[in-house]
Amino acid sequence: MGIPSDAADPLYLQLADRLAGAIRTGALGAGDRLPSVRQCAREQSLSVSTVLQAYRHLEDGRVIEARPRSGYFVAAPQRRLLPEPEPSTPPADSLAVDIATLAERVMQAAADPTLISFGAACPAADFFPEERVRRALSQATLRHRAVLCQYPQVPGDEQLRRAIARRALAFGCTLDPRDIVLTSGTTESVGLCLQTVTRPGDTVALESPTSFGFLQVLQALHLRALEIPTHPRHGLSVDALELALRTQPVRALLAVPTLSNPLGASMPLAERRRLAQLLARHQVPLIEDAIYNDLAERDEHRRAVKGFDADGLVMLCSSFSKTVAPGLRVGWVDAGRYTPQLRRLKAALSGGHSTVTEIAMADLLTQPGYEPQLRRMRQAIARRVDDARRQIADSFPRGTRITDPPGGIMLWLELPAAVDSLALYKACLDERICIAPGTMFSATDRYRHCIRLSVGGPGDEAQSRALRRIGQIACAMAREGLALAA
Amino acid sequence: MGIPSDAADPLYLQLADRLAGAIRTGALGAGDRLPSVRQCAREQSLSVSTVLQAYRHLEDGRVIEARPRSGYFVAAPQRRLLPEPEPSTPPADSLAVDIATLAERVMQAAADPTLISFGAACPAADFFPEERVRRALSQATLRHRAVLCQYPQVPGDEQLRRAIARRALAFGCTLDPRDIVLTSGTTESVGLCLQTVTRPGDTVALESPTSFGFLQVLQALHLRALEIPTHPRHGLSVDALELALRTQPVRALLAVPTLSNPLGASMPLAERRRLAQLLARHQVPLIEDAIYNDLAERDEHRRAVKGFDADGLVMLCSSFSKTVAPGLRVGWVDAGRYTPQLRRLKAALSGGHSTVTEIAMADLLTQPGYEPQLRRMRQAIARRVDDARRQIADSFPRGTRITDPPGGIMLWLELPAAVDSLALYKACLDERICIAPGTMFSATDRYRHCIRLSVGGPGDEAQSRALRRIGQIACAMAREGLALAA
Repeated sequence: MGIPSDAADPLYLQLADRLAGAIRTGALGAGDRLPSVRQCAREQSLSVSTVLQAYRHLEDGRVIEARPRSGYFVAAPQRRLLPEPEPSTPPADSLAVDIATLAERVMQAAADPTLISFGAACPAADFFPEERVRRALSQATLRHRAVLCQYPQVPGDEQLRRAIARRALAFGCTLDPRDIVLTSGTTESVGLCLQTVTRPGDTVALESPTSFGFLQVLQALHLRALEIPTHPRHGLSVDALELALRTQPVRALLAVPTLSNPLGASMPLAERRRLAQLLARHQVPLIEDAIYNDLAERDEHRRAVKGFDADGLVMLCSSFSKTVAPGLRVGWVDAGRYTPQLRRLKAALSGGHSTVTEIAMADLLTQPGYEPQLRRMRQAIARRVDDARRQIADSFPRGTRITDPPGGIMLWLELPAAVDSLALYKACLDERICIAPGTMFSATDRYRHCIRLSVGGPGDEAQSRALRRIGQIACAMAREGLALAA
Repeated sequence: MGIPSDAADPLYLQLADRLAGAIRTGALGAGDRLPSVRQCAREQSLSVSTVLQAYRHLEDGRVIEARPRSGYFVAAPQRRLLPEPEPSTPPADSLAVDIATLAERVMQAAADPTLISFGAACPAADFFPEERVRRALSQATLRHRAVLCQYPQVPGDEQLRRAIARRALAFGCTLDPRDIVLTSGTTESVGLCLQTVTRPGDTVALESPTSFGFLQVLQALHLRALEIPTHPRHGLSVDALELALRTQPVRALLAVPTLSNPLGASMPLAERRRLAQLLARHQVPLIEDAIYNDLAERDEHRRAVKGFDADGLVMLCSSFSKTVAPGLRVGWVDAGRYTPQLRRLKAALSGGHSTVTEIAMADLLTQPGYEPQLRRMRQAIARRVDDARRQIADSFPRGTRITDPPGGIMLWLELPAAVDSLALYKACLDERICIAPGTMFSATDRYRHCIRLSVGGPGDEAQSRALRRIGQIACAMAREGLALAA
C-alpha cells in the first residue's frame, strides 16, 4: 500500500498490508485469485468479518477486485500514466493575500451550466442520492412542521449532532455531541474557527498549493498566508511545518489532511500523529477540514488528525456537501477547547439554521443505505478519475505531470513551464470550457504553469472531447512557448 | 397622529392626518360614525380607494374602528395607562462591550419551552401561517428537487431577490434585485455589514437602549459601542447623533428606525430624511435593521431610511423571521455602495443557502394572501399588546413607566429605581418565568431598573397570571428597596 504501517492498526489493516505486500513483491500476480474469505480466515486465525473488511479495504484501494460469484482477484496494476509532480517549495515567509477577483470569476464560470466545467470542486448531481434527499426533506417538513415557526438555536438540532458524533467514529474520533456546532457548511465552519483563534494581521500556515476558498477567507479576515511545502501524495510536510513554527509567528494551521485541495494528497497515519504532537508542543491550533474524508478510498485516510489530539487543539470541520447533497447546506465543527468561544461567535454572527433540514440530514445519515451509497459513490468516482487520467495522458503536452489521488475528483497538473495557466484558462473559456488556473491556489505566483481539473462531471462524450481539447490547446501553447524561447 | 406631516405625503396620508386632527381636537368624538367611504370621497374630491386606504390606515393605528355592516367609528381614546419613559441619556463616550454571558443565559431561558417566556423578541408560533409555510416548502422540494444536489451561489435565488425588491416598495425603496444578497437572517446580514465597514477597535453608534444581539456582535468583532440618546416613541435623536459625529470617530451607525428593540420607538418620516442627510454629510454608513418594518401599524413607519439615501450609504437588512417563519432562516441585505465587498465577504465566510427554502419563501411572498395575513397578524398582535399593557398597569409598582409602541410585541418598562432587574430576572426564573433584564440592552449599567417584556406569547391565562406575578415580585422589591433606604 506504500503507507507506513502503524503498530496500533486494527487487525484487518494489518492483514490488508500483508496482502498488499505480497502483491507488490509479485507473490500474488495480476489476475490471481485470492483465497476465499473463509479459507483466509482459517489460515490467518482471524474472524470472517475481519478478512472481509481487509478485502473490502483492498478493493476500495483498487488493489484487488471482486468478481460476482467468483471471488476476489488481484487487480491489473494501475499504469502510472504520467509522473507525479514534485513536492512543493513555497517561499519561507508569509504573504498578504489578494486572490478574490480571479477566484470569483472562476467560481462563477464553474457554476455556469452552459459551460463544460472542470472547475467545481464538487461531484456532479448524478453522484448524489437526489430522490432520497428529497424524500427525507419532505418527510421532515411534514412531520416536524412546528419547527418551521420556531427560532432555531445554536448549536443546532441534537439528533443531527448525535448522528454526526456516531459517524465521526469512522474518522477515529470520539466526539461529544454537546461539543458539535452545526453550520451552513465547511466554509462557515472554517471561517468561524479562524475568527475564533486569530485577529487581523495574524499568520496562518496552510498547504501549498491550497484551496482558493481558504485564500479568500484569509483575505476577507486580513490574515497572512504562510504556505508550507506539500508532497503531492503524502501532503503537508511536518518537517517543514516544524521549522516554520520555530521561525515564524504562526497563529494557526489550516489544513486538509485527507484529499487536500487541489493536490488530493492524503497524509499517512503516522504523519497525522506526528502533526498532532508537534502542534501540541507549540500549542498551535489546527483547523482540520475533513470535508473529503468520506471520499477517501482507504480507511486510514478517513481517520482525522483530531483522533490524535490530546490537547483539544484540533478544530474539526466537515459537511455533507460532497457526499449527501450540496444544496442542503449542512456542516459542522467540533472546535475542541475553543468550543465555547466559537459557539458564542456563531450565535452573534449568524445564529441557528433550518431545523427541518437538520432533521432531514440526521435521517439520511442514520438510514441503513448510507454506507453502501458512500461505497458506490467512491467506486463510481474512482472509475471516472481513471478514465480522465487516461485521456489526459493521451492528449496533454510532453512533460506534463499529474497527481494520482487516493479518492476524490480533483487532479492537479503541472504543465511544461512554457504554458501560462491563466492564458490557458482564457483560451478554454473561449471554447466554453472551464478549468481552474494554478495561480488561484497560492498567494504566490509559483503555480502559473499548473491547473486543477475537477473530473467529477457527467463524464460523457462532450466532457471527454473537452478534456482532449484542453490538452490540444496546452500542446499548442507549449510549442509556441518553446518557439519563442528559441 | 402626532407625527410631523410630510408635504410629499400621498393623498391618503394627508386625508388620514386631517381626520386624525379632527379627532384630536374633538370635532369627531369617541363612538362618532365617520362619513361613509363614498360620501367622504365625494366631499373631499378623492377616489374611493384613496379614502378606503386612509380609513384602513387610521384603523391600523387604532384611531378608528370598522364595525361589520355599520361603517367606521372613532375608537375610544387609548387610555394612557402608565406614563412613558423619558428619553435615554447614555454616556458621551464609546465603551468596549462585555455582554455575552448574561445574554446567552437569557436567550437560552427564553427558548426553554418549559418556561413561561416574556424573553424572546419573536411572536409565538400561532401568529405564523404554519400550514402555508409547510406547503410552500414541500412544493418547492418536490418541484425543484434538482437544486438539492447543486451548490448554491452567493447572492442567492434570483426569484426571491426579485420578490424582495417588489416588497421593498412598501419600505419606500426601489431596490435592484442584483444588489440584494440573501443571508440566513438579519443576524448574518448585520454581521456582514459590520465586517464590511469596520475593523476591530472601531466605534459604532447605536440607539440606547439597544438590541443585545447588536451588543453581542460588537463584542464578537471587538468593536466599541457609542450609545446615542433615544426617545421612547420617536427613536434615535438625530441632534445627539450629529454632535457625536462631530466629536467621536464613529465608523458606522447601527440602528432600528422602525420599532427599535427594546423600546419599540419609530422615527418620524422627517427625522428619517434628516438622518440620511446627516450621514451623507459625514459619509458615515447606516446599517439599517428593518426586520420589524412589516409589523409597524402605520405606513410611514414602514418606510426605510434607505428610501432617502442618495449616496448608497445605507445598508438595509431584513428577514422574514418575524412575519413569515422564524425557522426557515431567510434574510437579506442591500448594502448600497458596499455591495461588492459584502458579497465577496459572504462568499468567503459562509457561501450560499438552501435554494429550495429560498424558492419556498419567494412563493410565500408573492401569494395573494400575504398582505392580508400581515394585516391580520398586526391586528392580533395589537390586541395582545393592549391586553398586556392593561394587566401591567394593574399589577406593577407605582412609578412604573412603560412604552406604547406603534406595533410589534415588545414593551420596555422603567421600574422604580429600587428594583434591580437582575434580581427580578432571577426571582422570576425561580418561578419558571423568563423576562429580559435591562442590563442586557446597554454596554453601560444605566438600565438596571428596566426590563423588556415580549408579549407575543400565547396570551393565555397562564401568561396573564405570570405577568401579574412579575408585577407582584417587582412591587415587593420596590417596597423592600424603600424600606432599606428608609
